[in-house]
Amino acid sequence: MDESLAVTSPGHGLRSLLTGAEPCQIMGVYNGLSARIATAAGFPALWASGLCMSTALGVRDSDEATWSELLAVVETMTANTPAPVLVDADTGYGNFNTARRFSIKAERVGVAGICIEDKIFPKMNSFVGDDHRLAPVGEFCGKIAACKDAQNDDGFVVVARVEALIAGRSVAEALDRADRYREAGADAIFIHSRQSTVEQIADFARQWGGRAPLVIAPTTYYATSLEEFGRLGINGVIWANQTLRAEVAAVRDACSRILQSGGVAAIEAEITPLKEIFALMRYEELEAEELRYADVGAHLAARPVPASAGDAL
Amino acid sequence: MDESLAVTSPGHGLRSLLTGAEPCQIMGVYNGLSARIATAAGFPALWASGLCMSTALGVRDSDEATWSELLAVVETMTANTPAPVLVDADTGYGNFNTARRFSIKAERVGVAGICIEDKIFPKMNSFVGDDHRLAPVGEFCGKIAACKDAQNDDGFVVVARVEALIAGRSVAEALDRADRYREAGADAIFIHSRQSTVEQIADFARQWGGRAPLVIAPTTYYATSLEEFGRLGINGVIWANQTLRAEVAAVRDACSRILQSGGVAAIEAEITPLKEIFALMRYEELEAEELRYADVGAHLAARPVPASAGDAL
Amino acid sequence: MDESLAVTSPGHGLRSLLTGAEPCQIMGVYNGLSARIATAAGFPALWASGLCMSTALGVRDSDEATWSELLAVVETMTANTPAPVLVDADTGYGNFNTARRFSIKAERVGVAGICIEDKIFPKMNSFVGDDHRLAPVGEFCGKIAACKDAQNDDGFVVVARVEALIAGRSVAEALDRADRYREAGADAIFIHSRQSTVEQIADFARQWGGRAPLVIAPTTYYATSLEEFGRLGINGVIWANQTLRAEVAAVRDACSRILQSGGVAAIEAEITPLKEIFALMRYEELEAEELRYADVGAHLAARPVPASAGDAL
Amino acid sequence: MDESLAVTSPGHGLRSLLTGAEPCQIMGVYNGLSARIATAAGFPALWASGLCMSTALGVRDSDEATWSELLAVVETMTANTPAPVLVDADTGYGNFNTARRFSIKAERVGVAGICIEDKIFPKMNSFVGDDHRLAPVGEFCGKIAACKDAQNDDGFVVVARVEALIAGRSVAEALDRADRYREAGADAIFIHSRQSTVEQIADFARQWGGRAPLVIAPTTYYATSLEEFGRLGINGVIWANQTLRAEVAAVRDACSRILQSGGVAAIEAEITPLKEIFALMRYEELEAEELRYADVGAHLAARPVPASAGDAL
Repeated sequence: MDESLAVTSPGHGLRSLLTGAEPCQIMGVYNGLSARIATAAGFPALWASGLCMSTALGVRDSDEATWSELLAVVETMTANTPAPVLVDADTGYGNFNTARRFSIKAERVGVAGICIEDKIFPKMNSFVGDDHRLAPVGEFCGKIAACKDAQNDDGFVVVARVEALIAGRSVAEALDRADRYREAGADAIFIHSRQSTVEQIADFARQWGGRAPLVIAPTTYYATSLEEFGRLGINGVIWANQTLRAEVAAVRDACSRILQSGGVAAIEAEITPLKEIFALMRYEELEAEELRYADVGAHLAARPVPASAGDAL
Repeated sequence: MDESLAVTSPGHGLRSLLTGAEPCQIMGVYNGLSARIATAAGFPALWASGLCMSTALGVRDSDEATWSELLAVVETMTANTPAPVLVDADTGYGNFNTARRFSIKAERVGVAGICIEDKIFPKMNSFVGDDHRLAPVGEFCGKIAACKDAQNDDGFVVVARVEALIAGRSVAEALDRADRYREAGADAIFIHSRQSTVEQIADFARQWGGRAPLVIAPTTYYATSLEEFGRLGINGVIWANQTLRAEVAAVRDACSRILQSGGVAAIEAEITPLKEIFALMRYEELEAEELRYADVGAHLAARPVPASAGDAL
Repeated sequence: MDESLAVTSPGHGLRSLLTGAEPCQIMGVYNGLSARIATAAGFPALWASGLCMSTALGVRDSDEATWSELLAVVETMTANTPAPVLVDADTGYGNFNTARRFSIKAERVGVAGICIEDKIFPKMNSFVGDDHRLAPVGEFCGKIAACKDAQNDDGFVVVARVEALIAGRSVAEALDRADRYREAGADAIFIHSRQSTVEQIADFARQWGGRAPLVIAPTTYYATSLEEFGRLGINGVIWANQTLRAEVAAVRDACSRILQSGGVAAIEAEITPLKEIFALMRYEELEAEELRYADVGAHLAARPVPASAGDAL
Repeated sequence: MDESLAVTSPGHGLRSLLTGAEPCQIMGVYNGLSARIATAAGFPALWASGLCMSTALGVRDSDEATWSELLAVVETMTANTPAPVLVDADTGYGNFNTARRFSIKAERVGVAGICIEDKIFPKMNSFVGDDHRLAPVGEFCGKIAACKDAQNDDGFVVVARVEALIAGRSVAEALDRADRYREAGADAIFIHSRQSTVEQIADFARQWGGRAPLVIAPTTYYATSLEEFGRLGINGVIWANQTLRAEVAAVRDACSRILQSGGVAAIEAEITPLKEIFALMRYEELEAEELRYADVGAHLAARPVPASAGDAL
């Protein structure tokens, strides 16, 4: 590995990806294991999805989990990947002060940046219902500024997520909000849409004109190609919840077939063997280290010991 | 629902299942979401697997996670299922005192019982390597007795897991250990084997002769049918890690295909739609409750208020 | 101890204290140790103070700690006292849903009840500044109702804290709010004042006329006697922060004197000996239990063992 | 502050203190608040005491708290002090792997170093009872080496605590163990004694001859002066539990007097006023920041907004 890369902070790593020639694919994950799998698959960056983390914890994506519970999950991700992790900060969990406390702690657990959205706490997932109230612009800019002022590493990234289109506002308002957030210090803009086609996003992107990196999560308008997103000027594409949805489908299917058949024989060939899971989690490293560390002083212990030395020696 | 069932503790529920006419299928899960899926599929009881919880957290099944971290995960399970949860307690995390502290806290977070194994802390997963040292019988009996003496609900279950066969000892020693654990207070015996066929377990079960309920995890000898396990006198069959393995296979596949194709179009039809996940997590209940609780006092607020009442009213 | 008391839930215990002939003294505590000390001193009930818990954690009483962090502290209290614990729930940490999630989890960790106040999240400590905005009555009633509907034990107590006087509103508004909260389901009213004399509280209490139990925290109007509070119809008196303030004074003094003198000789006679701390924490119990549980199966182990039995036996 | 100091890691800061001309006074603390108080008093370094943290949590110093629970406490300390914190790692909580996991996480939460002792897990506090079994030298050296190999910052300190004298072994054995630990990578030696006079420690220190920095905790032999410790070659003096003992004495006294008198009037003048606690915790900073961040975009919001902009703007 290049020495210069070794000292790059996660934030600088993410910045580099968001300013590349092509859109960066950012994989949504929900725990340490999915972070490891996505990294092994080759994704250069990860999205710690609020929806996915909440669902994995068995709660709803309406700020039912506290931010400290979520960061405990995020910490298991950064321990399992060298890739930069962008963490979903929802609305910042209250005011400028809770937002920056989250941000400070997030940076400490090793993420590359946070993404904060301009809705009201407690928020509801953007794909559920139509009651998505937006935060006053000035108040939201305060949260952005507070997080930026509090960062330790100068590469740390604060992404402002614009929910105007989700709330049924115009592209013009979305652009105005995005620009104000940029002025308040946001390093990138996440423009969110839940339309089934790309037009709305395309309209925004063209008018935005590259004032700052643009990130999207094409959960509903997934038919558009990565190349097309690139041509529109999108810098990062977040696959926000597909790992979770693949998990749910697979676990549902496994449970159903096991219960009905009274056994696992029918699915055994389809599921990952334990030995591959042990390889993924590097059990062989632990076994090697046991040999290395189990008795480091053995050769030293061979030296004559004082008469009083007892059983433990 | 039968009124008498409503007041049954999780422990009594598990006892009832382990003394039924047929073997009870117990599904291994690793977080709140998988607990909810397994319950929805119809499993009557769940196994909070140490291997699976550890892997989901991104650590190895060698006591890398602390017991308080594991119980935080278990708490997300009991909040997501009415089914009794049996929690993997590994070796009890130290001595009789840490074992009972774990057990007390486990009961408080709502599990039906714990399962403690007779290896040395920190232990290694039973399917990894050959260095599986067994605890002295007297010391292990002390852990069982301490947990039993500390339980609050009289239905709470302490299962003793015998690792003698994993450690390469004889069936005779396994039987002797099992009986001593039963005498020390264990409510059931988990006899573990990693052979690819059922003979070893069958031999044990026949000689055991129903002295206490028997539980197994046929991860390697899965070809045997549930009916055959029933004929052998097995009371509970734990499918210990198949949900996790189904998850890993699915998430790996999804990651690989998304990254390669630069999009999710190819997998969209195979993964669970978001709306099904929202249904699984009962988002509609939250929306209904918002209407119910958002402004309870509205009719009261219509009463005349004192002159000093300000903006908030 | 009376047998009938032994099966009383914490909530019923607190209800009984709040309906006694004389005002109940409720001691504010901040962690497991202070809960144990206050219990040993004889206090019949404890107040898990948000200010004190926050300060002990090194954060400010402005919702800087998350509710899950606070409940982890509260859990160390209930593990250290048989006395009912009333826990400060601030404003409920968001909306009706976060409030009831807090309440459900609080009940699970063993508290007798919660106390929720009618300010806006994130709130500021009532003794700091003058910017204390009140919640709309209807919204706050919704939080109360949601917590009441979610309780498991029928004795669980929800106290509504009226901050109208803190916010500079009239006694009339405070009375009106209190009554609406009572109608919404509150089991008791905490009427808060930061005046240096009792008049405001006395005015409120007389007009309230015992419609529901009344609780106060006379931090500033401490000169009034307990008897006088009783005559006014007060049912519970919370000494909200004096343990913390005694702690700060003592630790400051100790630190200063140790650093200056370069030693502890000067303070040794004034501080609690270690052996008293070991007695307070019942170390002798642990030592006795070590003898009891360390080798339970020793007598069993004396039985002949199978030929294959190895080192562990 | 000197610019060069600003970029010094906590570990380098502690190293500097342990190699100064005079013994460094290290204050034992138990949570974020006590860390803040000790820092304000002027202590240059802090000791995150296992006994004190455990007691504050309401558990016994016999590994009743898990290491993840303890590090959550330690994190509140490092957030409240710029002084280097040395954290008590007990025996490393299992084997080389748990020890290094603790060490890695401890470094991540910002401590200067860890101190690991050569007893058997679960250990008992060194001042309680006589059953203090020592770890085999080779195994303990493996823990030290594993922690050293895992550190990220090259200044991070691993202190090896020698319990030979506590276990009744000779000074010769203590010296031999200390030297082996030093060879295995320990950066300093904590030699522990519970004699009431300094002779044993003095004997050790003279023979040790400065092979590596020496740290002590003169809980029982406190009559010796700091100057004398300096002459003996001691580099760091830990006042391990006096803050906790001062706290217990003060809280006990406050509780007793309040309950008896039915009020706080008698102690009000002796305890720290709330306003001093607010000053200690920098509430004025939060109020100033509220003005700064509450509405950052206000001036921006004055710009004309698109026609579709609604209530939120």
